[in-house]
Amino acid sequence: MGEAGDKAFFQPLSGMEVPRFAAPATFMRLPHVPLDHARIGEVEIGIVGIPWDGGTTNRAGARHGPRQMRDMSSMIRRMHPVTRRVPFDAANVADLGDVSVNPAGLEDTLGRVEGFYRRLAEFGIAPLTAGGDHLTTLPVLRGIARRQPVGSIHFDSHTDLNDSYFGGCKYTHGTPFRRAIEEGLIDPRRMVQIGIRGTMYDGEDYEFARSVGARLIPIEEFRERGLAAVMAEVRQIVGAGPTYVTFDIDFIDPAYAPGTGTPEVGGPTSYEAQACLRALDGLDVIGADVVEVSPPFDPSGNTAFLGVSMMFELLCVMTGALERRRG
Amino acid sequence: MGEAGDKAFFQPLSGMEVPRFAAPATFMRLPHVPLDHARIGEVEIGIVGIPWDGGTTNRAGARHGPRQMRDMSSMIRRMHPVTRRVPFDAANVADLGDVSVNPAGLEDTLGRVEGFYRRLAEFGIAPLTAGGDHLTTLPVLRGIARRQPVGSIHFDSHTDLNDSYFGGCKYTHGTPFRRAIEEGLIDPRRMVQIGIRGTMYDGEDYEFARSVGARLIPIEEFRERGLAAVMAEVRQIVGAGPTYVTFDIDFIDPAYAPGTGTPEVGGPTSYEAQACLRALDGLDVIGADVVEVSPPFDPSGNTAFLGVSMMFELLCVMTGALERRRG
Amino acid sequence: MGEAGDKAFFQPLSGMEVPRFAAPATFMRLPHVPLDHARIGEVEIGIVGIPWDGGTTNRAGARHGPRQMRDMSSMIRRMHPVTRRVPFDAANVADLGDVSVNPAGLEDTLGRVEGFYRRLAEFGIAPLTAGGDHLTTLPVLRGIARRQPVGSIHFDSHTDLNDSYFGGCKYTHGTPFRRAIEEGLIDPRRMVQIGIRGTMYDGEDYEFARSVGARLIPIEEFRERGLAAVMAEVRQIVGAGPTYVTFDIDFIDPAYAPGTGTPEVGGPTSYEAQACLRALDGLDVIGADVVEVSPPFDPSGNTAFLGVSMMFELLCVMTGALERRRG
Amino acid sequence: MGEAGDKAFFQPLSGMEVPRFAAPATFMRLPHVPLDHARIGEVEIGIVGIPWDGGTTNRAGARHGPRQMRDMSSMIRRMHPVTRRVPFDAANVADLGDVSVNPAGLEDTLGRVEGFYRRLAEFGIAPLTAGGDHLTTLPVLRGIARRQPVGSIHFDSHTDLNDSYFGGCKYTHGTPFRRAIEEGLIDPRRMVQIGIRGTMYDGEDYEFARSVGARLIPIEEFRERGLAAVMAEVRQIVGAGPTYVTFDIDFIDPAYAPGTGTPEVGGPTSYEAQACLRALDGLDVIGADVVEVSPPFDPSGNTAFLGVSMMFELLCVMTGALERRRG
Amino acid sequence: MGEAGDKAFFQPLSGMEVPRFAAPATFMRLPHVPLDHARIGEVEIGIVGIPWDGGTTNRAGARHGPRQMRDMSSMIRRMHPVTRRVPFDAANVADLGDVSVNPAGLEDTLGRVEGFYRRLAEFGIAPLTAGGDHLTTLPVLRGIARRQPVGSIHFDSHTDLNDSYFGGCKYTHGTPFRRAIEEGLIDPRRMVQIGIRGTMYDGEDYEFARSVGARLIPIEEFRERGLAAVMAEVRQIVGAGPTYVTFDIDFIDPAYAPGTGTPEVGGPTSYEAQACLRALDGLDVIGADVVEVSPPFDPSGNTAFLGVSMMFELLCVMTGALERRRG
Amino acid sequence: MGEAGDKAFFQPLSGMEVPRFAAPATFMRLPHVPLDHARIGEVEIGIVGIPWDGGTTNRAGARHGPRQMRDMSSMIRRMHPVTRRVPFDAANVADLGDVSVNPAGLEDTLGRVEGFYRRLAEFGIAPLTAGGDHLTTLPVLRGIARRQPVGSIHFDSHTDLNDSYFGGCKYTHGTPFRRAIEEGLIDPRRMVQIGIRGTMYDGEDYEFARSVGARLIPIEEFRERGLAAVMAEVRQIVGAGPTYVTFDIDFIDPAYAPGTGTPEVGGPTSYEAQACLRALDGLDVIGADVVEVSPPFDPSGNTAFLGVSMMFELLCVMTGALERRRG
Repeated sequence: MGEAGDKAFFQPLSGMEVPRFAAPATFMRLPHVPLDHARIGEVEIGIVGIPWDGGTTNRAGARHGPRQMRDMSSMIRRMHPVTRRVPFDAANVADLGDVSVNPAGLEDTLGRVEGFYRRLAEFGIAPLTAGGDHLTTLPVLRGIARRQPVGSIHFDSHTDLNDSYFGGCKYTHGTPFRRAIEEGLIDPRRMVQIGIRGTMYDGEDYEFARSVGARLIPIEEFRERGLAAVMAEVRQIVGAGPTYVTFDIDFIDPAYAPGTGTPEVGGPTSYEAQACLRALDGLDVIGADVVEVSPPFDPSGNTAFLGVSMMFELLCVMTGALERRRG
Repeated sequence: MGEAGDKAFFQPLSGMEVPRFAAPATFMRLPHVPLDHARIGEVEIGIVGIPWDGGTTNRAGARHGPRQMRDMSSMIRRMHPVTRRVPFDAANVADLGDVSVNPAGLEDTLGRVEGFYRRLAEFGIAPLTAGGDHLTTLPVLRGIARRQPVGSIHFDSHTDLNDSYFGGCKYTHGTPFRRAIEEGLIDPRRMVQIGIRGTMYDGEDYEFARSVGARLIPIEEFRERGLAAVMAEVRQIVGAGPTYVTFDIDFIDPAYAPGTGTPEVGGPTSYEAQACLRALDGLDVIGADVVEVSPPFDPSGNTAFLGVSMMFELLCVMTGALERRRG
Repeated sequence: MGEAGDKAFFQPLSGMEVPRFAAPATFMRLPHVPLDHARIGEVEIGIVGIPWDGGTTNRAGARHGPRQMRDMSSMIRRMHPVTRRVPFDAANVADLGDVSVNPAGLEDTLGRVEGFYRRLAEFGIAPLTAGGDHLTTLPVLRGIARRQPVGSIHFDSHTDLNDSYFGGCKYTHGTPFRRAIEEGLIDPRRMVQIGIRGTMYDGEDYEFARSVGARLIPIEEFRERGLAAVMAEVRQIVGAGPTYVTFDIDFIDPAYAPGTGTPEVGGPTSYEAQACLRALDGLDVIGADVVEVSPPFDPSGNTAFLGVSMMFELLCVMTGALERRRG
Repeated sequence: MGEAGDKAFFQPLSGMEVPRFAAPATFMRLPHVPLDHARIGEVEIGIVGIPWDGGTTNRAGARHGPRQMRDMSSMIRRMHPVTRRVPFDAANVADLGDVSVNPAGLEDTLGRVEGFYRRLAEFGIAPLTAGGDHLTTLPVLRGIARRQPVGSIHFDSHTDLNDSYFGGCKYTHGTPFRRAIEEGLIDPRRMVQIGIRGTMYDGEDYEFARSVGARLIPIEEFRERGLAAVMAEVRQIVGAGPTYVTFDIDFIDPAYAPGTGTPEVGGPTSYEAQACLRALDGLDVIGADVVEVSPPFDPSGNTAFLGVSMMFELLCVMTGALERRRG
Repeated sequence: MGEAGDKAFFQPLSGMEVPRFAAPATFMRLPHVPLDHARIGEVEIGIVGIPWDGGTTNRAGARHGPRQMRDMSSMIRRMHPVTRRVPFDAANVADLGDVSVNPAGLEDTLGRVEGFYRRLAEFGIAPLTAGGDHLTTLPVLRGIARRQPVGSIHFDSHTDLNDSYFGGCKYTHGTPFRRAIEEGLIDPRRMVQIGIRGTMYDGEDYEFARSVGARLIPIEEFRERGLAAVMAEVRQIVGAGPTYVTFDIDFIDPAYAPGTGTPEVGGPTSYEAQACLRALDGLDVIGADVVEVSPPFDPSGNTAFLGVSMMFELLCVMTGALERRRG
Repeated sequence: MGEAGDKAFFQPLSGMEVPRFAAPATFMRLPHVPLDHARIGEVEIGIVGIPWDGGTTNRAGARHGPRQMRDMSSMIRRMHPVTRRVPFDAANVADLGDVSVNPAGLEDTLGRVEGFYRRLAEFGIAPLTAGGDHLTTLPVLRGIARRQPVGSIHFDSHTDLNDSYFGGCKYTHGTPFRRAIEEGLIDPRRMVQIGIRGTMYDGEDYEFARSVGARLIPIEEFRERGLAAVMAEVRQIVGAGPTYVTFDIDFIDPAYAPGTGTPEVGGPTSYEAQACLRALDGLDVIGADVVEVSPPFDPSGNTAFLGVSMMFELLCVMTGALERRRG
């Protein structure tokens, strides 16, 4: 990690100095450090936007997620309220900008995203991503998990484990984790999904999960056993190995997160979501994302603010993992 | 129930085949079978819209409920996530269209609705209704409960048991259950209201309930005793007899259901609402409705989606009752 | 054309009989006649939705256009206010439903749309389409203009004549008319664009238009010469031959049409837009569309209502052409 | 008219003294003087709200008009920008509050409104009304035009001259002027409608107008002849006799006035609407209304502000008439 | 307290007599009694608006709070649903109007508010205030707590105990309670804050609280110990002495209260908020406020309705205290 | 001006390469060059945000203007559609970021803004500003017009020439041009206001304008004489001397620009506004601003897009002036 001077560069603008609504918006008011920036080599955790929703089968709009999340992230301050940790002191964090996607080219975009995250892997930058729809997680994993499958902690109301849509279409936001398992990017025995709910097509996705040894925790089980017990099991499932956390904003109830394309009623509160993420502390989280924030369905920006609040929790977890890896 | 061919006709369009935003909207993407349709005789459960809010004393708009609920119901899939039941396999369900109402004629409309439901009774179709304001439940009951009073399970933040408004007006959405008891449509000793809350006029409605033996469960009691205990009592109150379930969307807290005319803060979550309806399984539910969804107060459509999510739960309960009646 | 009985079938529901907010929504409250319907052979003009926006380079949402346009089209009545013509008396018009598209498959969808419109051509049905983004016009033309190039009257703020986007992507909503000319679907010397405005990339699209003999009428020329003179020239350009009219809702100023993905300020009013379309009377309009209505950017539905108001004008023009072809 | 002290009482609160968003909202920040107020006898022009939309055949919501119009009227200042007249100096103007209506009782409400306006007539107060739907104009006329029919200048996109709806319903917001003519409240030869447009049912209303000698000026004629010529004819039609002005906000194009229940595209601008009302100066306007502002369809309040801006113009015209009658 | 006649004057308009959307809006439909009104001397509890947000460091808009809260308060009825108390019977309550503030003058406004509340103190009127931003609580306390420091029960997601902003600015909505303690208006040992959460600047405010003996209860402690235990401690902290209750609407989760300038996710529900306020019964609450309702961020008005629902709870608590003080 | 390399740096990101919704938002997708950036010396025209609305007497929110205008400015392309000029080729243009303001300190902020613009003057950078409320123009003028008074072309619905508000408050957004004239920053004989309309306080501001020789052109005169004649006079009034253009978005009718704090009905269209600004070509415009865009009152962002469309026109005018000054 860098020196004092570097730290100053990587510090967010304070709302006590410059009002939150002022200045061009970057994630958490951090410096914008694109991949060709002189200081890219100093970055340890990179926040990246993937403004793309080409895999969306229902209501589009997640392409606008990164921009509104940058805007609302001005309301994030430096310090975690419970741990009092300041992630920006513990690691060099920066806004790496957005992947340059092709809104009219599905395969082209999958390649662009994979390429971008390969470069992050080369730089040794741990990625924290703001989607984009959930299909974007697939090329992220292709970029960072090529060498060995990772564990996956997946918060969502849907399994995203379907095989295909619309007569054979293999790549939609309903299929990425089927593909990731097939491609060996995720170790299904170290994979767990929390919060699954909503009416079902036919249960074939559940069957698939069972057949490969992945664990699904529907919302009813989450409520009955309680958050603490469930999260203890989650920790056990992924264990000490490298783990990716993927957080679909529709995990949280639509009262809290109306700005998403396929909401399902009966979900957790934002407080529970925070508690879930805080329970990941100590795991070796090597990357994470928050996806499916769709601004057109919540012009207020509150869903985006909820999303960046989740990103801050994930950033603190990732910072802890980074410090442990540093030893 | 019909044969294989019939079943294909009565199956909803799948979101895996045709995207949810495509095709003219019918309830749950079912076939539209008006009363003069050739196959009306095969329908077992009919979903009906009553686009009328002429009894509304406060903010109107529930007249637009059926249309937005049809639209949002495209997001309902085939299978129940807990029971894995597929109601569309268990019964022939169809969208019967809307009752043709008169927005400028209160008594005329009460007559039209009653007439429509009498015909359903003649066809032997169990109705699942999307309101409209809560006054619409009165003519529905007149149509289907003429022969014998039914039990009533009533989810609401208001009692709707007032006597009159505005100097003697007997028919508003604040009075239907007073009238239904007076007219012998509901057996008050088999009647229970859950979720009552909000500031009160004077308590005269509570007195009336007590005097006729109806049971009111305010939200505070609901919270203190717990959902399971309350719903066990509910089941005991209505017993094995024929029972109607009426669900005012303002039962659920306005954070979840902003699109309604007279919200009251401090209500249940959508998860609790689902749990309440799932607890009705096994009762002889012969009809049900979800009322007071008012789209102008929630252009996002999320309240309508919540409403149709409740309708799907009710449909599963009704399907079970139908199967038991079939023997 | 059919007999009296047929006419009754093809008449829209009247708002004087059934309130406009009642009944499942179809285009202009016409009967829903899918391609496998018994009476499809009687249809003369078919209104079709193409709920797809996979070619959209900017803000998506036009996939939701057909549904909201169906909803708002309940406010269309039978008779044209100036000509007093009733298009539903002059021709058998029906809502043919939506093309079944693939939101995650660009080429797949282009094929599906083309196939659908080939079948319409086989049935001899003249199509009036509700998009969808502007790329959808390309497969429509492929379906109906294979035999000979058509004239094209194009209302828009953009030329949609660009060559490619995002490093070689040939199919976006910014390129369809370049492709249509290249493929011989449109005769560029019988092609005119009206209302072009807004900041420009580099003018290469203008150059292309000039090189192939297509006529572009920017908004400044439209204002300076006046609507009557411009529309007289438009009529002259397309002449008596078969002509397609494509109407991008962003032709109209965003004050009138906020619900679209790429608005440009400084456009015509809705009154001028009506006048433009009325000036097409007498041309041989064999098909038409209204595209780029994007409901997420106008939850009020007013843009969709404006869109269906334009569709009604086009329907009247098409009905006139049909009558002339009948002789 | 009263003395200096009276005038101070009847002056609006200034936005230069108390900010516009402060203080309970009354029309134009005038004193609230209900009918039982000590100073009611001094009022010359009374602004009245009729919060009722029970005659609405399409989208309800005009019941909320008066409240939002009071709110937005805080932005009205004292002086007319062209004539430099201060109506609050020329007459004692007050907010008389709302008529106490019955939202679930059509005939009851018609009676209540008529009774209220009879009392205004007894007090010699000229009414300026904020609706409510257009049916409310009928009982207003019954209250003030019993003795002799008045002339009527009617700005609207609809004729509101239909005979009945929904199988014989004679009282809706589509019928009031048919009734008013039948009842002898309006002299049809001194009646003119301006701005009529939109698709038509069947033209029967036009026939009725012609048969009784009323004048209809469709928007196309308005545009072709020009505002000045049309308004000159309007003045000639009503002449010097007592005249009522009724202004349906849907006269103005929905880009300017989205907050209304039945918009029609292709209407005048707000500037033209102002010019129309300014052209009434010098006529004997004895009462006026602005109706059909429906806040649920424009939460921004801009339509309500447009409505009160029209009311200010009407107030200035009425003040002039009052001064002339004073001699 | 006054006699029968007085009581009638101080009774709210009933929604059973006059619909909720009718009549100019005052708080809870009470009479408007400005300070120069003849009956001001009879008022015991005065509801006051402070339409000012000049201390807001982030998103402004709370200046519009009082007006929208007046509007939505029409939905408050007479009787408390649990205690069945009618506060309007127990005390003379009136809407005193708004303090006349200066939106462009911070110090000027602080003086105006202080002066207004000094006059209330002279009249012996206990104030229930609708803000405005949280800085407005400071001059209220200056007005009513000059003689002796009061206890303070403070519901909020923020401490508002910061020292200064933007390079030495001592008066913002992030600093009022630091100032109130420094000025001796609040006794910090009788001060408690509940619900604190969200990312932190640096914890200096927490240090200050600890140093002066004030108690902070973060949301995590609130959840872990439970509402009952926490509120018991709250009662113990403030004891029997005179106590002020200040309620920032951002205490409640933004799913329930989106209409505020600086939301923090992970907050209590509206039911919990009600329970917290009901637990204050029996304390000597001499004044209270609900602040930071910001209508531009929730055009639906639901946040304002939540705010006035909290005000009704506070009114009942204040009425009880008043009765006890009467003996 | 710089060399080729410099030009590449100062070029906007193209929407044909990177989709418009991607990448952190800067004005017109230009590089962000804060005052301490290495290349600040090469900037010729600097786009600056002043996120401040502390002088607003009515509805606040313009503090959020710069951020939403940056967001929507992604839709601006390189080339002017009429002149085909590319301002980014003609001059080095950059986004200089926002002035660091104090939302709770009026005089502090006036000083900060003045200081910022003095530095721009030292760098020789011509400023194009996005407000902020109209009071922000005063310190801008203090920063750039100290040496000699400038001419002023002022588009607005209000004169902003009032003397004081709220009992002596000299600095609000209703007073800046009175102050600017008093301070000798504007030469009143070279000052012209276009579009003035709306109800008036008392006309004292008009008197002041007349007394100092400033020219006011109300909207009625604008319409009667026509845009061309008016703009010819405007050019004559300011002549060849250095001129500042200040554009209040409420100049344009609220149908086009709803997102502003104090709209006035009856204004020009966006097309007319473009024509007005294009008519300034050839004048020596040394600076310009677009103010009073208030995002909370138009969540759609369309008003902000209109604002940046006006900024693009102004940029082209300023670029022309710059080229002429270069000789």
